[in-house]
Amino acid sequence: MPGLSVWSVEGVGEVVPGDDLADLIARALDRAGETLADGDVLVVASKIVSKAEGRLVPAEDREDAITAEAVRVVASRPRRDGGATRIVETRHGFVMAAAGVDASNVPAGHVLLLPVDPDGSARTLAAGLRGSSGARIGVIVTDTFGRPWRQGQTDLAIGAAHVRVVADHRGGHDAHGRPMTASVTALVDEIAAAADLVKGKAGGLPVAVVRGLDVVTDEAGPGVASLVRGAESDMFRLGSDEAFAAGHAAGLRMAQELGERPVGEHAPETRP
Amino acid sequence: MPGLSVWSVEGVGEVVPGDDLADLIARALDRAGETLADGDVLVVASKIVSKAEGRLVPAEDREDAITAEAVRVVASRPRRDGGATRIVETRHGFVMAAAGVDASNVPAGHVLLLPVDPDGSARTLAAGLRGSSGARIGVIVTDTFGRPWRQGQTDLAIGAAHVRVVADHRGGHDAHGRPMTASVTALVDEIAAAADLVKGKAGGLPVAVVRGLDVVTDEAGPGVASLVRGAESDMFRLGSDEAFAAGHAAGLRMAQELGERPVGEHAPETRP
Repeated sequence: MPGLSVWSVEGVGEVVPGDDLADLIARALDRAGETLADGDVLVVASKIVSKAEGRLVPAEDREDAITAEAVRVVASRPRRDGGATRIVETRHGFVMAAAGVDASNVPAGHVLLLPVDPDGSARTLAAGLRGSSGARIGVIVTDTFGRPWRQGQTDLAIGAAHVRVVADHRGGHDAHGRPMTASVTALVDEIAAAADLVKGKAGGLPVAVVRGLDVVTDEAGPGVASLVRGAESDMFRLGSDEAFAAGHAAGLRMAQELGERPVGEHAPETRP
Repeated sequence: MPGLSVWSVEGVGEVVPGDDLADLIARALDRAGETLADGDVLVVASKIVSKAEGRLVPAEDREDAITAEAVRVVASRPRRDGGATRIVETRHGFVMAAAGVDASNVPAGHVLLLPVDPDGSARTLAAGLRGSSGARIGVIVTDTFGRPWRQGQTDLAIGAAHVRVVADHRGGHDAHGRPMTASVTALVDEIAAAADLVKGKAGGLPVAVVRGLDVVTDEAGPGVASLVRGAESDMFRLGSDEAFAAGHAAGLRMAQELGERPVGEHAPETRP
């Protein structure tokens, strides 16, 4: 019965810029009478990492903040409220709605941005918690992502340190001796999802402990940056409408260049 | 400390067509000395559901089987081995690589197709396990999915019965009284991911128990079918290349149609 346990850490409390988050978590664990053990993974919502790192910034307009955080718009759709839902690529290479810019649970006139370097944040947290606990732990920083094709959101890892990022079964064989397909499991994302089940959204429980997995490593490791898919293997680099529009424009251009009559000068005269 | 435990059920053994899967699982639990409790969620890999339901079919060619299972090709890319990676929409509305057609862990010359009605499979399993255990349990049937934009696969739910599919926080407010964003959690998918962490891929542990969540319902519920995103809200209905190509063709057509309009005496002549 190889099993895992997941529970949330109560009493981390409100986090403000400059807080030593590892220390806050260690003290919350202490107060709860909990001791970290070798192999534990601490799963921490990016929200409190961002707050500790001073990523709560004044912003009149969330949309402007999203624009500033995005390096590329992947897809955009008008919303009923007159705005637009924008799926963008962040500086980290994550593709997500609104660049992870959060306007809930923050003071009016402010937005919360993602950590600048979530893998680095995870390394700092892991170093602090390893120091105070003496335990060989790993850290995952998470955020909430929507999905194409499926309703609802799930938590994914945006930063990781001292945790095996994937379980790579490639080259392995099944019970019939045939090569395994579908064989690279995104461990950190499955751990992030498991932790979200106990963290709760409105409940303000931003830290969870996952115990019972064999995923903690001595090295800090490549982090979640290693999960980002490069453009060359990205079959959904643009939204369908955006790619169609780009293709349409290219088709018109091609027709023009092929020596067809210049497009646009053929607009029929509707006035006498 | 609201927490959950997840463990795999050993000894389910090889599954063959016509097996009563609920009975196989109940007996494996018995042998392991485990008792299901109210609120437990049984997470079952689609592979053994398909096998019990006779979805192991002879197929000379996996590619033909994929074509037969797909209702629509979403995106396609040539593979190094000369074939093509095809992301397709299945009859259920799932968008996934290879239509979930599995050629690993099956006899040569055969492929394993997804269950015809995974929510129905989950209902049947739940009824059987509720009957034998007397416990108020829920069932999730899972499969492994790749993701756009991120490397690696995670397990998602493809069928569910007697489990709350989502936790809907919409209309809720944060600690500052502001409306929550990102507020519909895909519970069944997060549970599927958590279960995968203990099930293992090559290890042949296709059943897990998740205990400690408040998600089991009296009604069978809407199932995973309710998570499928409709075309109208799908911003990634086609792969970028496919949408670009469709747009390109439409652009050329438009240029042609414009060019075929009767040319008036004032239309500029571009050719001598």
